[in-house]
Amino acid sequence: MSETRAIPGYTYGQHPLASPILPEELTLLKQTVLFGPEDEQLLRLASEVLADQTEAILDVWYGFVGSHPHLLRYFSQQGQPDIQYLAAVRKRFGQWIIDTCTRPYDSVWLAYQQEIALRHHSIKKNQTDVARAEPIIHLRYILAFIVPLTVTMKDFLAAKGHDAQTVAWMHAAWFKAVTLTALLWSHPYVNANEF
Amino acid sequence: MSETRAIPGYTYGQHPLASPILPEELTLLKQTVLFGPEDEQLLRLASEVLADQTEAILDVWYGFVGSHPHLLRYFSQQGQPDIQYLAAVRKRFGQWIIDTCTRPYDSVWLAYQQEIALRHHSIKKNQTDVARAEPIIHLRYILAFIVPLTVTMKDFLAAKGHDAQTVAWMHAAWFKAVTLTALLWSHPYVNANEF
Ligand code: HEM
Ligand code: HEM
Repeated sequence: MSETRAIPGYTYGQHPLASPILPEELTLLKQTVLFGPEDEQLLRLASEVLADQTEAILDVWYGFVGSHPHLLRYFSQQGQPDIQYLAAVRKRFGQWIIDTCTRPYDSVWLAYQQEIALRHHSIKKNQTDVARAEPIIHLRYILAFIVPLTVTMKDFLAAKGHDAQTVAWMHAAWFKAVTLTALLWSHPYVNANEF
Repeated sequence: MSETRAIPGYTYGQHPLASPILPEELTLLKQTVLFGPEDEQLLRLASEVLADQTEAILDVWYGFVGSHPHLLRYFSQQGQPDIQYLAAVRKRFGQWIIDTCTRPYDSVWLAYQQEIALRHHSIKKNQTDVARAEPIIHLRYILAFIVPLTVTMKDFLAAKGHDAQTVAWMHAAWFKAVTLTALLWSHPYVNANEF
């Protein structure tokens, strides 16, 4: 915990204000993305596999964002990428990989999903890092990111010598977790009663 | 074409009213879900693999919906599933599998994505089949369906003896196509200027 406390702006567990999503609703969503107890176990295993690879993973993801102007602009002000903003978010992004694999998906987790959702939305974007970049990340790209964040993970999951079947299972668990996360983050963008 | 004309309510190509998504925007979205020309080729191949399996695929998907009350309710009126509605939608769903693999992703395709989006949303739900079921499908489940619609496809793609690598590539292309589709369908649910 001392390590995670050191990440500026990382406030997991500090948002008692409940998520708009009820625990019963989360249960139904987990069923719908086929997320079961075996996926929790597979993500625990994945966290061990990924623990010393998070910087390499972030290199790939940041490389993807950096090479696409339509994505980099969300980190930019008047066409100039904000290097400090990129660096500050990167630390929390690395922690998110491990959190997604190890945190129980309970009401504390739900509450932080809502907080991160708001940080992508105009309601809270830029606030945490006192940045002045684009005021909102459009939902279409958040949902589109399900693909690169899933596809690029395969090689990292395979990098520690697990058999192909175990890697495929870990990869499927990760896919379910990312999709569940992205859909929860859509909440602030959606018309009342339509989420 | 004579076969597809015979599907009640299937109106591909009959919605000249432009999609709210511009072609340039679609290009950027395809880049973001890593969808390239090789994926188009893989989906053409997938369409040959899947052509005589669509009923079996629909059995799996309808079985999933039918065994989950929180999903079946969208086909139901006062707690009773509407069998005719289920059957009518099923025909178009089968056609959609083939369309997703074979149609060029152009402005005609975009326009029908918007039409299907509206048919899940309260704007047009139930109209096509003169049904009286739930008035809207909540967005969270449309996005959650990315997982079952992707995961369950693997075995069907593998059923015609293609090597494991080709199956994996076809599966990845399908995953990208489903994610792109689902995110386009979120449009009617999203606050103005936040899509
Ligand atoms: C599934 C999709 C996505 C995931 C999982 C994801 C993950 C994350 C994480 C973990 C954080 C830090 C959260 C925290 O403060 O603790 C973050 C923040 C951020 N992300 Fe994303 N992200 C996604 C989509 C995107 C997209 C498409 C963009 C556009 C390039 C983007 C740009 C940003 C920016 C600018 C921030 C900082 C927001 C702020 O001002 O606080 N993200 N993201
Ligand atoms: C990625 C997610 C989904 C895909 C790809 C999908 C696919 C389709 C397709 C192809 C159609 C027929 C479109 C046409 O009229 O030509 C349809 C209609 C329909 N779907 Fe979905 N669907 C998805 C999510 C859902 C969910 C979560 C539900 C809830 C159980 C659902 C329930 C329905 C219903 C009730 C209709 C009929 C709508 C009407 O009244 O016209 N769908 N869907």
